[in-house]
Amino acid sequence: MEYQLLNQIRGPEDVKRVPAEQLPQLCAEIRDCLIQTVSKTGGHLASNLGVVELTVALHRSFSSPQDAILFDVGHQCYTHKLLTGRADRFSTLRQEGGLSGFMRPDESEHDPFITGHSSNAISAAYGIYKAKTLRGEAGTAVAVVGDGALTGGMAYEALNNAGSGKSNFIIVLNDNKMSISRNVGALARYLNLIRTRPSYHRFKLRLEHALGHVPLIGKQVRRSLFRSKTMLKNAIYHSNIFEGFGFNYLGPVDGHNIEKLENLFEIAREQNRPALIHVLTVKGKGYSFAENSPKHYHGVSPFDAEEGMDVDATKESFSSVAGETLCELAKDDPTVCAVTAAMTSGTGLSDFAATYKPRFFDVGIAEAHAVTFSAGLASAGMRPYFVVYSSFLQRGYDQVLHDAAIAHYPLTLCIDRAGIVGDDGETHQGVFDAAFLSTIPGMEIYSPTYYDELRHLLRTKKTLCAIRYPRGAQPTPPADFAPCDDAFTCFEREGKKAIVTYGRLVANALDAARRLPDVTVVKLNRIHPLDEALIALLRDFSDVYFFEEGIRSGGIAEQLAALLYASGAGCRSRIYAIPDVFVPAMPVERALRRYRLDADSMVEIVSGTSHG
Amino acid sequence: MEYQLLNQIRGPEDVKRVPAEQLPQLCAEIRDCLIQTVSKTGGHLASNLGVVELTVALHRSFSSPQDAILFDVGHQCYTHKLLTGRADRFSTLRQEGGLSGFMRPDESEHDPFITGHSSNAISAAYGIYKAKTLRGEAGTAVAVVGDGALTGGMAYEALNNAGSGKSNFIIVLNDNKMSISRNVGALARYLNLIRTRPSYHRFKLRLEHALGHVPLIGKQVRRSLFRSKTMLKNAIYHSNIFEGFGFNYLGPVDGHNIEKLENLFEIAREQNRPALIHVLTVKGKGYSFAENSPKHYHGVSPFDAEEGMDVDATKESFSSVAGETLCELAKDDPTVCAVTAAMTSGTGLSDFAATYKPRFFDVGIAEAHAVTFSAGLASAGMRPYFVVYSSFLQRGYDQVLHDAAIAHYPLTLCIDRAGIVGDDGETHQGVFDAAFLSTIPGMEIYSPTYYDELRHLLRTKKTLCAIRYPRGAQPTPPADFAPCDDAFTCFEREGKKAIVTYGRLVANALDAARRLPDVTVVKLNRIHPLDEALIALLRDFSDVYFFEEGIRSGGIAEQLAALLYASGAGCRSRIYAIPDVFVPAMPVERALRRYRLDADSMVEIVSGTSHG
Repeated sequence: MEYQLLNQIRGPEDVKRVPAEQLPQLCAEIRDCLIQTVSKTGGHLASNLGVVELTVALHRSFSSPQDAILFDVGHQCYTHKLLTGRADRFSTLRQEGGLSGFMRPDESEHDPFITGHSSNAISAAYGIYKAKTLRGEAGTAVAVVGDGALTGGMAYEALNNAGSGKSNFIIVLNDNKMSISRNVGALARYLNLIRTRPSYHRFKLRLEHALGHVPLIGKQVRRSLFRSKTMLKNAIYHSNIFEGFGFNYLGPVDGHNIEKLENLFEIAREQNRPALIHVLTVKGKGYSFAENSPKHYHGVSPFDAEEGMDVDATKESFSSVAGETLCELAKDDPTVCAVTAAMTSGTGLSDFAATYKPRFFDVGIAEAHAVTFSAGLASAGMRPYFVVYSSFLQRGYDQVLHDAAIAHYPLTLCIDRAGIVGDDGETHQGVFDAAFLSTIPGMEIYSPTYYDELRHLLRTKKTLCAIRYPRGAQPTPPADFAPCDDAFTCFEREGKKAIVTYGRLVANALDAARRLPDVTVVKLNRIHPLDEALIALLRDFSDVYFFEEGIRSGGIAEQLAALLYASGAGCRSRIYAIPDVFVPAMPVERALRRYRLDADSMVEIVSGTSHG
Repeated sequence: MEYQLLNQIRGPEDVKRVPAEQLPQLCAEIRDCLIQTVSKTGGHLASNLGVVELTVALHRSFSSPQDAILFDVGHQCYTHKLLTGRADRFSTLRQEGGLSGFMRPDESEHDPFITGHSSNAISAAYGIYKAKTLRGEAGTAVAVVGDGALTGGMAYEALNNAGSGKSNFIIVLNDNKMSISRNVGALARYLNLIRTRPSYHRFKLRLEHALGHVPLIGKQVRRSLFRSKTMLKNAIYHSNIFEGFGFNYLGPVDGHNIEKLENLFEIAREQNRPALIHVLTVKGKGYSFAENSPKHYHGVSPFDAEEGMDVDATKESFSSVAGETLCELAKDDPTVCAVTAAMTSGTGLSDFAATYKPRFFDVGIAEAHAVTFSAGLASAGMRPYFVVYSSFLQRGYDQVLHDAAIAHYPLTLCIDRAGIVGDDGETHQGVFDAAFLSTIPGMEIYSPTYYDELRHLLRTKKTLCAIRYPRGAQPTPPADFAPCDDAFTCFEREGKKAIVTYGRLVANALDAARRLPDVTVVKLNRIHPLDEALIALLRDFSDVYFFEEGIRSGGIAEQLAALLYASGAGCRSRIYAIPDVFVPAMPVERALRRYRLDADSMVEIVSGTSHG
């Protein structure tokens, strides 16, 4: 694509050279490039359209990489990539071997840290800032944080740490009034309050001036008013959560006005006190489809840029089946609750949220709280289902262990996006949950292959458990398949070789078995704890092949192998799973092929044409 | 012990019946009981002495269990236990089979939730509150939270969630100006600011009154002042972090004045808005030794109640060796940093903190931030060591995986209290870290048995790794023992049986081997990833016994067994580890015996007198 100004930008220095009057054109070109590219590659659109001017202003005021600029939830960093020498490769966004959809230090010196999961950027940026200071290096660090990210507790841990010293550390609060779903909680209301004030430092100046003119008459009144004034000044200077945490609060400022942004950045960097700059942006800015429906243009698949996407299309998926089933359960049982951490739509809970509002809890991007809050509900007689992406549940490991499992509360974790997720890459893979949850005493883990199993599990499991399922749709179930309560299912037993697997790989195994003589497929329904009868069954085979769409180390296959080994079984065993690596961005099918978890690989392995 | 008033208290109803004039005597009896008991049993003293009046007032104003009262970091709940029917068993505190040192629902209906790890009580209490509301039950929920707990991000996630609705949910902020170490960060300074104000609601009333008397002269001035007044009122009503989060802030109030506390509790429960009551207490109150040195009386071993403890005694331990070694490293290398999450003293970092202040970071009870902040330091050229208790690192699992491991930053996790911890019981066992860390690609894990190994590892390991060691002192090293860089060490190879283990169990194994003929001890130095040469060595044995002081499921022994099995080794193998349970409070030696990890059990098992 030919963009007159954008094509001349080779790095941040070029951004500084653009004359102010040409900036609107540059921003228009960036927006067009974002829309054209993301409509082809898929990716995050609305959030990126919202930060075009903000990113341009950052690169005009600061000097990356000397100044480290971190975008929290890196999926808002597309403009940053365009302005830091990656415009020519931008069409490879989120493609295998192409540009990452998040900040990646191995991709550019202008990406100082990986920011895939929310709310980590202040922590990382403050670490970088302190390192620069201790090493006597020039430059500062800037964390660009969305209002949604401020619902994550880690951000406050970082505010508490970073606000306590003298520094010119800078946080830019990109307030678009929405995280992934519409923003929730007290903070959202609070931000709305301070948004409605005129520029805050002008407000403070005017108040101080006004206070100077309060007449002081009479000793008693005077003393009382003097104390009040002192307290009042304290109140003014700390009348804001961020000032309470020690930050100099500047704003709010129009995030689409580059000149105003540059002015505030100048003020912030010259002070010897950490600053928080409150920037108001419009998510989806400049693309009417996205402005009108930012939620649908948050993370998108390829679509027609001229026509916009069909926002009403809802395909059946594990997510939608989970959401529907929870609605049915809630209808019959008044104790059923659903909890989400800012993923109402993504986890299929929109109908539940609308229909059972008092029993629906969107707690913000706050997985740790979500688990313990759910455990609290369960401890007092409710039946909570916490529906969460596998990768984000990593934030709640301690809470599952300490707050739910020790007392063994009847909480169901519905784990969406379990397994390989595809184009989001390393930071979002759901390949760890089976391993880390299985370390927790008393935890039962189920991994349905088909919708009917998911429905059955949601309806019948009433103790502490996890039910994990992948992104997208089910494979076609075998004829006459029906969910069962057994810990495992043995398909068409024949021969001396067994393939053992679970979740969506079962479809691959059945496919492979159709092409192989004398192979039995054993499907694990409950993947933890493993069943004694399963060991008894498997020890009669000559060869047992475990296939696991999950991390090998500490995973289910290893646990099964150890049990089988301890039983004295004489069979040979092999494990195929995700090795000791982070799975990069690539289509799910290709990743399964790479790790030899597809049907073709299974055939090659079991038939002996390959021993990997 | 005969206590005139305390002995008559069978439950909260009896607390309500005590005439106000006898309350000082009741509190004195409680204090005496706390000091006498804890000096014998060990436990948490200073924090409990600080909340005697507060707990009495809570039980006079609220009606447990109808009103759920949760103490965050349950170790401040001793008075609560004394007042809720457990005074007669109080001498069994933290003893095997006795009262837990934390809240335990299985111990009493007055303990609504397990609170061992910090900062979880608001989340749990709000869940309980919502459950009560949805079920139409009477009563409310009260979370009693220390100022230290407010450095944990989870507390803010909960504030954000709980502050957004109408409710009479109540948080009591027990502000003793210190968490475990002296409190740190911006919030501590902020609390100090609001502490110095007179009672806050009086302040607000007076300000409103004063504002009513600002003269309004001239249209222009009037309009300007009117706007200022509106903004000012907003500022006053939200001039506090907690009001920013939607809470009605009440206080500060003297936490040793029962009458005042009861008054504020009445105000709070009658409002239809969540309330936060700021209570000022003195840690160690009423016991001069503890008041003067609350840090040393935080968690204590048995001591002489009349003489106080010897606070200068510092025994050599893994913690002290780690602290000393990090000081030595910092002396030679200006990039070495130490990070702690509110555990300066417990992790042996006091000298480091004093000597290398600019490179020492106590970030508060904020493990998630600590990991990512450390990763930020590492990403920008520093050498951070995050020293943390095993059990608390569970809070940072996602951050180790996402923020440190994907980019593979050179961060060293120094994991103290790894393995069984003894009297703190279920909530604090360090038996999960080896399993959950080993799921993370690229993570190296070491488990030294002796101080010299710990020193060697801290000096030589410069990539992302974890070095884990138990509470307390080393076992006596074998003569001529020297640390080595090999992944494992094979002691005195002989016979066809091998014991494989790591960490402090190596001493038990060597002891057992001395009593057994023909047994080889294989000590794992690096426990993850496991070494190919190790498999080659082990496959020649007829019997391999794994002993692991860690959770079995997903642990190192299972991983090793799976590798050995896949290698086609014909040897028999058995795993002895922590089974699928939470280890209750008991002395370490007894726990090791229970799970058959002591030398006697090893002898029995390997010699065939037992096959457990």
